[in-house]
Amino acid sequence: MTYQPGLHILAELSVPEAALLVQYEKTKECIEALINRHQLQSLGEVYHNFTPHGFTAVICLSESHISLHSWPEYNRIHLDVYLSNFLRNNDAITQSIYEALKNFYHAEELSVQTLKR
Amino acid sequence: MTYQPGLHILAELSVPEAALLVQYEKTKECIEALINRHQLQSLGEVYHNFTPHGFTAVICLSESHISLHSWPEYNRIHLDVYLSNFLRNNDAITQSIYEALKNFYHAEELSVQTLKR
Repeated sequence: MTYQPGLHILAELSVPEAALLVQYEKTKECIEALINRHQLQSLGEVYHNFTPHGFTAVICLSESHISLHSWPEYNRIHLDVYLSNFLRNNDAITQSIYEALKNFYHAEELSVQTLKR
Repeated sequence: MTYQPGLHILAELSVPEAALLVQYEKTKECIEALINRHQLQSLGEVYHNFTPHGFTAVICLSESHISLHSWPEYNRIHLDVYLSNFLRNNDAITQSIYEALKNFYHAEELSVQTLKR
């Protein structure tokens, strides 16, 4: 079987409402809903709130990973959504999760890279 | 203070010795040594071995993250090393960790992307 590259979206987002970037709790709810909606399999995760503010999170999926690093002092968040295509083609799901997160944060894109890997 | 972009290296590596890609244990030792050597701060991690082979790992750092997804059936591993520059400039450390992992796997680069973000 030939290797099937997966889609990795890397984005830097501008988030007007810095309150969404202070702690991870609301983001975690959003991520968990997306994982359920798209029937992805979480293998474990790390969510961490910094003092005085900002959070970082990595979610390990059987399909690869999602990561988020927030910078409330700069109204920005950096996020990665990367799903492999081992058992099925997940490219549309990768894009859908990215769009859902962008909408969740009411964000503007500062920059976006899409890689097939 | 202006935002200081960090260096994110994303690589697809060809690994002749597929045995290194079957389970995560030796990789974990390597990663932990690198984290200690460079005085990075791990906030938590997920290492997972798949059945029958292959592993996936994400290491959440206060400086951002490292991720690895192995494909022993294709002699390849995909890895990301991303360190922010919030408290100090970590660009040289990002590069050094990437080189150390490439050496650990006796790997050839299939493709490498470096992003400042």
